[in-house]
Amino acid sequence: MINVLLLPELREMLANNDQEELQQFCTALNPTRTAEFMEGLSHDEAWAVLRATDVPRRAEIFQYFDHDRQIAILSEQNPQEAADLIAELYADDRVDLLQEMEPDRVELLLSLLPKSDRRDIQRLQAYPEGTAGSLMTTEMAKLGEQLTVREALDELSHLGEHLETIYYIYVVDAEDKLRGVVSSRQLISSLARGQTRLAELMQTDLQTALATEDQESVAAKVEKLDLLAIPVVDDGGKLVGIITHDDVIDVVREELIEDAQRIGGITPLREEYLKISLLLLSWKRGAWLTILFFTALLTAFALGHYEDALERYAWVVLFLPLIVSTGGNSGNQAATLVITALTGGELTVKDWRRVLVREWLVGMLLGSLLAFIGFFVAWRFAPSPYQALVIPLTILLVVTIGCLAGSMLPLIFRRLGLDPALMANPFIAGIMDITGIFIYLNVAILVIGDL
Amino acid sequence: MINVLLLPELREMLANNDQEELQQFCTALNPTRTAEFMEGLSHDEAWAVLRATDVPRRAEIFQYFDHDRQIAILSEQNPQEAADLIAELYADDRVDLLQEMEPDRVELLLSLLPKSDRRDIQRLQAYPEGTAGSLMTTEMAKLGEQLTVREALDELSHLGEHLETIYYIYVVDAEDKLRGVVSSRQLISSLARGQTRLAELMQTDLQTALATEDQESVAAKVEKLDLLAIPVVDDGGKLVGIITHDDVIDVVREELIEDAQRIGGITPLREEYLKISLLLLSWKRGAWLTILFFTALLTAFALGHYEDALERYAWVVLFLPLIVSTGGNSGNQAATLVITALTGGELTVKDWRRVLVREWLVGMLLGSLLAFIGFFVAWRFAPSPYQALVIPLTILLVVTIGCLAGSMLPLIFRRLGLDPALMANPFIAGIMDITGIFIYLNVAILVIGDL
Repeated sequence: MINVLLLPELREMLANNDQEELQQFCTALNPTRTAEFMEGLSHDEAWAVLRATDVPRRAEIFQYFDHDRQIAILSEQNPQEAADLIAELYADDRVDLLQEMEPDRVELLLSLLPKSDRRDIQRLQAYPEGTAGSLMTTEMAKLGEQLTVREALDELSHLGEHLETIYYIYVVDAEDKLRGVVSSRQLISSLARGQTRLAELMQTDLQTALATEDQESVAAKVEKLDLLAIPVVDDGGKLVGIITHDDVIDVVREELIEDAQRIGGITPLREEYLKISLLLLSWKRGAWLTILFFTALLTAFALGHYEDALERYAWVVLFLPLIVSTGGNSGNQAATLVITALTGGELTVKDWRRVLVREWLVGMLLGSLLAFIGFFVAWRFAPSPYQALVIPLTILLVVTIGCLAGSMLPLIFRRLGLDPALMANPFIAGIMDITGIFIYLNVAILVIGDL
Repeated sequence: MINVLLLPELREMLANNDQEELQQFCTALNPTRTAEFMEGLSHDEAWAVLRATDVPRRAEIFQYFDHDRQIAILSEQNPQEAADLIAELYADDRVDLLQEMEPDRVELLLSLLPKSDRRDIQRLQAYPEGTAGSLMTTEMAKLGEQLTVREALDELSHLGEHLETIYYIYVVDAEDKLRGVVSSRQLISSLARGQTRLAELMQTDLQTALATEDQESVAAKVEKLDLLAIPVVDDGGKLVGIITHDDVIDVVREELIEDAQRIGGITPLREEYLKISLLLLSWKRGAWLTILFFTALLTAFALGHYEDALERYAWVVLFLPLIVSTGGNSGNQAATLVITALTGGELTVKDWRRVLVREWLVGMLLGSLLAFIGFFVAWRFAPSPYQALVIPLTILLVVTIGCLAGSMLPLIFRRLGLDPALMANPFIAGIMDITGIFIYLNVAILVIGDL
């Protein structure tokens, strides 16, 4: 929902070039709220409003603009002003933005930045997507171990405004190697003992991330320990950055959405649905859909094998889709549960025996229930109650096998070091299609016989 | 993986009742690490180790024990010692633990707690599960607006150790009504102007949560603004607690896992897979599975309607499962994408036209591809290439309709105020089963005719 409350006033201020009122608008509210009120403006208008205030405030509001507007402003407005804005943005955010802009424009903007910012951006860009290094910011509170509490607070009162977080203060030795951490809470509670050195105060047993470590493993550490931030070190133990809690939420969200998409049989998009190109969207779905289509084609050959039986017991054909769907659904449910439990850390491959027993019991229970219902419907179509028994028998078998296959295949995939979500539901549905047909027609032949 | 490195030493210390060494073990490491090294011990052994150190340290280590061990210790050990431990735990965590214990034991423990803790627990327990009130902690840094920066820091240096977070300091008036917020960073950077009052320093335009607000809406606010914590107020604007970033990660995770489970056709478990009772597990799956079974039963009646056609063109039966699966799969993919895009905030109901056009184009493209492959396989089974045309025509229609139905149904559900994930994939598969059969047999009758 776009907030249009202030749009007329803002447009009037712009038309009158009323710098003072615009400046007031930019500073009176929380920056989030300011950005929200500007949502209805064009990119050019929004930038004209921001230019009424100083660069630090511009950057604060700018960070709450939506992604497209951010890219548009940095790409199209005066290069020197864009570069000034970039210099004020958080180190990790600006790298993400630059990665999506035209290479020529990026080169121009980089050339207009202060040398230290330029170097910093290039260093962060060097880490591949998905690693701790690509996620971290280089702006952290880093102090020498020889400082006293009072000196540290003094230092922080200067640094504070430029950093993304000062809730943890990282303590390093003369070679920038990470030695320990002090929280700002500890610092404040130690005010009474102002001459204590950080080296005495700091906690030395701390969790770190390697810059080349996978982002999901880093997110798991932060989440497990409820940290606000985790320090990132290079191979030599040197402190190179930190990853903050807000980036961790993003990683957790991304990871779970990817899981959900794999469960739905799609290669994870990694781009917004409305923005991804139609060809890429078709490819990400088409690849799986085609694989599934080929497994489904096998059902035609399987049925071809039973052509005689199908012609002889015509009523059996009526229940074919029912059997195939029911097997697929029960397999889907089991697989979804096991995959989400694996992602959530509730389950490990070692628990396979317990899963097997649970699924066997649940399968028998649910299978019996559906078999009972199925029998009465089958009775209506089958020439005799005896022949109708084919349906409940098949349903019981198919549901139980669906539960077992759906739960075991993700565990097997995890054991082999593959992503269990990849194996996922549509694949299991494919397997259950074929299995269902074989079970169904063999049961039919056994029960009904040669007539 | 259980860390067994120190188990023999720990057991030896326990056997010798070597309190000093045990005390050293409890304090030497980061509490997470300490808890990790104790994983291989029995609950009784773990408690015996903790008893060697003081209560605050016990609580710190205890919070990293796994849930079952926490419950076991609080339920089975000396009640007074358990109550002392509870008094030290974070306000929100202990309420969660007490909610899972035997009512008699809870009553006993509550009676042994200091009055203020007891009241606090009872107040938190009053908020229903899933609201901001049930998620919040009452331990926040709350200071009067008349305090100066120096007085505030002084106050915090006393309070600091007992609070879950002091990164935001909430400023209240004489009636405890929330007036503004000051960050500890601001406080530190204002040290030079120690006589400034908090009322001048504080930011007054701030996001709050109502105690009765839904936890997902609160999590969305915190995530959008990258907050470390959000203040919770009652109807009268009185500050009653805060919700911290770590609880928000838990809510985001819970919400996405529930989505994934709904996509997989299961009522969200809300309990761990291995711990939920088999009957409840069967119920949560059985309810959906039975609904799906009834929709699948309709396919039998639908096919019954075409019994003549099925008998006349026997080869058509062979492709029945293929058509039904392919329609379901393409619908699944579209629905999963739209549901995850809705949850991620990338998409709103207003975008329905764009979604419709995209899905129509993707459906035509993927449908044509699969139709092409399908034609050659059909040729093998059909009496003539002309009759084989039934398959590609049906596939093109079924895939396109699958994409359209799969994408539109979640949007329609959202528009009606219902959960789009609920509509989810298996349901769409059910609809596509029937639609697929109607399309298929009508195309067959049209193309092949009466022979």
